[in-house]
Amino acid sequence: MHLATVRRGPSDPSTAAAVDDGRGWLLLEEEDASALVAAADWRDRVERALATSAQRITEGELEFLAPLPRPAKILCCGLNYRDHIVETGRDIPAYPTLFAKFADTLTGPTDEIVVAGSDRVDWEVELAVVIGSPVRNADVETARSAILGYTVANDISMRDWQERTLQWLQGKAFDATTPVGPWIVTADALEPRHGLVVECAVNGEVMQRGDTAELVFDAARLVSYISCVTRLSPGDLVLTGTPGGVAMGMSQPRYLRDGDLVTTRIEGVGELRNRIRILG
Amino acid sequence: MHLATVRRGPSDPSTAAAVDDGRGWLLLEEEDASALVAAADWRDRVERALATSAQRITEGELEFLAPLPRPAKILCCGLNYRDHIVETGRDIPAYPTLFAKFADTLTGPTDEIVVAGSDRVDWEVELAVVIGSPVRNADVETARSAILGYTVANDISMRDWQERTLQWLQGKAFDATTPVGPWIVTADALEPRHGLVVECAVNGEVMQRGDTAELVFDAARLVSYISCVTRLSPGDLVLTGTPGGVAMGMSQPRYLRDGDLVTTRIEGVGELRNRIRILG
Repeated sequence: MHLATVRRGPSDPSTAAAVDDGRGWLLLEEEDASALVAAADWRDRVERALATSAQRITEGELEFLAPLPRPAKILCCGLNYRDHIVETGRDIPAYPTLFAKFADTLTGPTDEIVVAGSDRVDWEVELAVVIGSPVRNADVETARSAILGYTVANDISMRDWQERTLQWLQGKAFDATTPVGPWIVTADALEPRHGLVVECAVNGEVMQRGDTAELVFDAARLVSYISCVTRLSPGDLVLTGTPGGVAMGMSQPRYLRDGDLVTTRIEGVGELRNRIRILG
Repeated sequence: MHLATVRRGPSDPSTAAAVDDGRGWLLLEEEDASALVAAADWRDRVERALATSAQRITEGELEFLAPLPRPAKILCCGLNYRDHIVETGRDIPAYPTLFAKFADTLTGPTDEIVVAGSDRVDWEVELAVVIGSPVRNADVETARSAILGYTVANDISMRDWQERTLQWLQGKAFDATTPVGPWIVTADALEPRHGLVVECAVNGEVMQRGDTAELVFDAARLVSYISCVTRLSPGDLVLTGTPGGVAMGMSQPRYLRDGDLVTTRIEGVGELRNRIRILG
């Protein structure tokens, strides 16, 4: 099943949760996918909407927004692709490296990303995990059953700010710089452990290509680990890290420039297309 | 002015914002201080309540809670006391080291702090800044005028988890381990730049004693810097870092033990008293 948050229409700026019934997208009653998945009976609600022929959105009018506009928690994992870690000469880590983002850090799947005050703006394609039920001190199997689904994210990073101090947060939390979406694919339809290609292209040139089978800490292990620190709730997001191929890793880094188009794709999930605006 | 979030009474578990009128605490209409300060006219609301003789709380029934129960953002600064940085042989930093906490990380000023899964639990007295008005890309003076006031926090840190990876978050974000309160002192009544003693004692023995005049990045500079990364909103919190004297810095660290009483004090602001429970 695919779930999204969409604009109701060109003449109505309000938003709604939506579901893909295989022939197109239907509007749901909830104002966004966060409100939908916060309801324990969200699957029943979707089934009822499908059964009662909810309003279909005209294809030309579809506008996808960040599917979960205000997660209470966004946790991100660094250094998590095995092949990339080995390639850089590091040891496979015993624990996930975690940092946070804010709800304000997120932006939509086709939004312009406007950055002021940085000239080392870099890309990081990431598989994002959407939490579906409350989870605390969970073993891996319990954590797996708390995963509602997956979406695409790009952990756009301001490397100059990230490297100013030991802690990465300030380079990772510029407002409206992490695109997410375009929709959530539920976990019953997808198993990232079996391998999904994750890819980031700049102006059509593929810069990163990885495989989620290479994750050191897969989605369920990450959720389990995080849940021993802090409880996770429906609508929370976990970003699983990025493979090699970022600008920072190049001998002559080619950071993002004003006007660049960043395309972020995950096989079986979806694609983000974001134009970069660098303010001088 | 002193503002707080209190329990309405022993027979009423609901909460309310409250104000100290110099003779004791009066209940306000808002359910907590976050809801109060989210209103642009919060000062008028408080004045009206004072003028119309709002309900006075019987002193024996006063129970202070974390004054801001659900901040959207909590940013924390590391390495910020000049004397402590020099003493440890480091250079004075050019930029603040920033990390985040979650709303779930907070707990009340007299709550037990229950930690499971760590045997290196440490203390960090911190002056906490409460944001009073929206602030984004602000210079230092604009940032200063966006500060509503100050409260006391203890950035209780699980050093084993903090040191597992390069990023501190996981050792700083255990649920319900950062006590805050007992109330907010508004900025018109207090200027930390002029020097306030900050102190942490364990079972009555003073372990940390610092002076906010030693902050490398004072409250307004921190708010200004953070506002260039992400907007801050009324009720958000900024923790300003801790002086020397933590267990981690001892040649033979004396971490917190089950049953320890941690007292966290800031001159002119208030005091937290939290019993530590370490689950084996």
